[in-house]
Amino acid sequence: MTMTFEQAQQLDAIDALALARKRFRLPEGLIYLDGNSLGALPVEAPAALAQTVERQWGDDLIASWNKHDWINWPTRIAARLSPIVGAKPNELLIADSTSVCLFKTLAAAAKARPGRKTLLSQKCNFPTDLYVTQGLAEMLGLTLKTVEAEEITGAIDEDTAVVTVTHVDYRSAAFYDMQTVNEAARGAGSLIVWDLSHSAGAVELDLNGSGAEIAVGCGYKYLNGGPGSPAFIYVAERLQDELRSPLQGWMGHAEPFAFDDDYRPASGMLKFLTGTPSILALAALDAGLGTFEGISMADLAAKSRSLSQLFIKEVETRCGGKVSLESPRDPLKRGSHVVFAHPEGYAVMQALIARGVIGDFRAPNLMRFGFAPLYNSHLEMVRAAEVLADILATGEWNQPRFKARAKVT
Amino acid sequence: MTMTFEQAQQLDAIDALALARKRFRLPEGLIYLDGNSLGALPVEAPAALAQTVERQWGDDLIASWNKHDWINWPTRIAARLSPIVGAKPNELLIADSTSVCLFKTLAAAAKARPGRKTLLSQKCNFPTDLYVTQGLAEMLGLTLKTVEAEEITGAIDEDTAVVTVTHVDYRSAAFYDMQTVNEAARGAGSLIVWDLSHSAGAVELDLNGSGAEIAVGCGYKYLNGGPGSPAFIYVAERLQDELRSPLQGWMGHAEPFAFDDDYRPASGMLKFLTGTPSILALAALDAGLGTFEGISMADLAAKSRSLSQLFIKEVETRCGGKVSLESPRDPLKRGSHVVFAHPEGYAVMQALIARGVIGDFRAPNLMRFGFAPLYNSHLEMVRAAEVLADILATGEWNQPRFKARAKVT
Repeated sequence: MTMTFEQAQQLDAIDALALARKRFRLPEGLIYLDGNSLGALPVEAPAALAQTVERQWGDDLIASWNKHDWINWPTRIAARLSPIVGAKPNELLIADSTSVCLFKTLAAAAKARPGRKTLLSQKCNFPTDLYVTQGLAEMLGLTLKTVEAEEITGAIDEDTAVVTVTHVDYRSAAFYDMQTVNEAARGAGSLIVWDLSHSAGAVELDLNGSGAEIAVGCGYKYLNGGPGSPAFIYVAERLQDELRSPLQGWMGHAEPFAFDDDYRPASGMLKFLTGTPSILALAALDAGLGTFEGISMADLAAKSRSLSQLFIKEVETRCGGKVSLESPRDPLKRGSHVVFAHPEGYAVMQALIARGVIGDFRAPNLMRFGFAPLYNSHLEMVRAAEVLADILATGEWNQPRFKARAKVT
Repeated sequence: MTMTFEQAQQLDAIDALALARKRFRLPEGLIYLDGNSLGALPVEAPAALAQTVERQWGDDLIASWNKHDWINWPTRIAARLSPIVGAKPNELLIADSTSVCLFKTLAAAAKARPGRKTLLSQKCNFPTDLYVTQGLAEMLGLTLKTVEAEEITGAIDEDTAVVTVTHVDYRSAAFYDMQTVNEAARGAGSLIVWDLSHSAGAVELDLNGSGAEIAVGCGYKYLNGGPGSPAFIYVAERLQDELRSPLQGWMGHAEPFAFDDDYRPASGMLKFLTGTPSILALAALDAGLGTFEGISMADLAAKSRSLSQLFIKEVETRCGGKVSLESPRDPLKRGSHVVFAHPEGYAVMQALIARGVIGDFRAPNLMRFGFAPLYNSHLEMVRAAEVLADILATGEWNQPRFKARAKVT
């Protein structure tokens, strides 16, 4: 039995997060299921940017570093992540890109475990995580070992300097039990750097409660910080003194404006800054994090599960066996997106996009649909499934224009 | 003899660059001599940002990577630097911060000179350059050697893997003869990474002609890219295949959207990308580089010299011996800023700022005045010198409010 539009609208009517959709400017008629790649535009972002550009940069110029407190934005804005990831405000920092933040934290962690020769990660981890780790391993003369996700815990041993895994898999959406992996690492004396790119803002996170020590994450996915938004770093308070980033820049110096010749790291999270952060990018991320104001993360996670369960059920009921679910069926073992495989997944996704249902494609054959609980609705789930079923039934995807690969997928 | 306002206005009337001031939105009445710290707001920037935020991010969302060619912005925008720095368009890339770009290029250069154990730099180089180099040296087990600026050429030997110096000194504005240092390095088989932060957009540069192989530079000073703008990297074409950044991220992969497990560097400059660049920050830098459209760099450098010579003459004539010039007196040996020392330089600068003449202070006692040839005028030079003379004559600076140190100077 499929759900009617009316039934879906009834679910939306009792949705605790329904009001949050008004915090975004979404194009009329589009069903945007790609907030896991690029979050939608917060209504507040254009004015925040204009204010920062015209009133601050334009009118107050260099004085803005003091007058508008730009110097503290990387920590002030990071503190807004505190309830979203379950960490203390002083354990968070906004900086650079996820890849650069990963390099810094991995290098700092490896340095804190001298003598250990292995960096451990997961096969099919998000590519940039593997590339960064490969680059660092080569630089430090360490070995990168990769195992299947389910083998991670067992693979941590006394030669493991650092483990780095992505909490929610970017393809399947399967996620790790954070506490279990943290305990295994701690038992072996290893450190873990979590990549929360596909988790933060989409699932409930309790970094402190799960004993997580180090993490990084993306600002432009569920956090709605805009294209190429800076990333975030989390380091547990107890570990902050011990770690030191090898990417030493003046913004991470104890006294940046003393212009000393010698580096002395700032205390707390500031030592993980390197160069001057983009204030414009920070302003946009600030607006992105503002979309979470007053939202209960338990409500958010519950809505995520409600959306994805409905989507799976509607797709499977309407499409028969034409697509196969490649995400965990149990919503408690899955992040906020799902993937369905189809042999011509790329073309089917392009046909969906042409019909205004925006997901994305991940090699080799996966159609990925992300659910942003702040702005997606149950009605959209039913509509999207209906369009997918129609495209598959009519073979509409089977056109050359849908098969030509774009540069960015 | 001092110059009258009218005489200065006559110079401005025949200024080949006078029209360029209209490309900026400068606050009425302010004399902004700190474009070397943060360039002024280009008139085009607010609309460019609004367009990127609302029409691209907002309306086209993830499709913008293809539709608006975001994926190519780091190279497309970099190519606009080509006439400004004297390099081929395909030798340039916009990425990260200056500090992170310096780390990448230094590490890549050091790797290309295996067996050599020394990184050579200059005492009192811009602090972040020293910090980055210290961090890298420690990471790679190399030695950082620093010598006085005038000793650099003689200090390059067959143990020198990489030399890194800032072309125009951030305090004195003294600059290196690029060709001489390049030749010394090449003679010893060493590589040089130039920091052009205080040069690009302010002095004539001929990277290709001078034999420069690697450089980085800042986007938010004379290039007007906005607060914390991303930086640029230059690598001579002949060296691009040889170098490899250790900060390997998916945006520098040969096929980012193949999602391979193994890193294969892109060809050309793209391999120096790491994470996803901030598109908003790139849009602002694009507008900043637009302010150079059609400008002859010879005209720009000539105007820079004309402004700084006038300012020095007016200050020295009007202030007597109360301040001392700490920049080279020969305009051909100096970048586009000058420093004057005063025992109470900090307080004097705050008094100037309170009167609408914006320069900055650099420890221990230097008042720094930057001249952005695109928007500063000869009239401003005379007016600023007059205000400084007045503040020194009256002792107006000698107030507690001018002595309280701000967080950012």
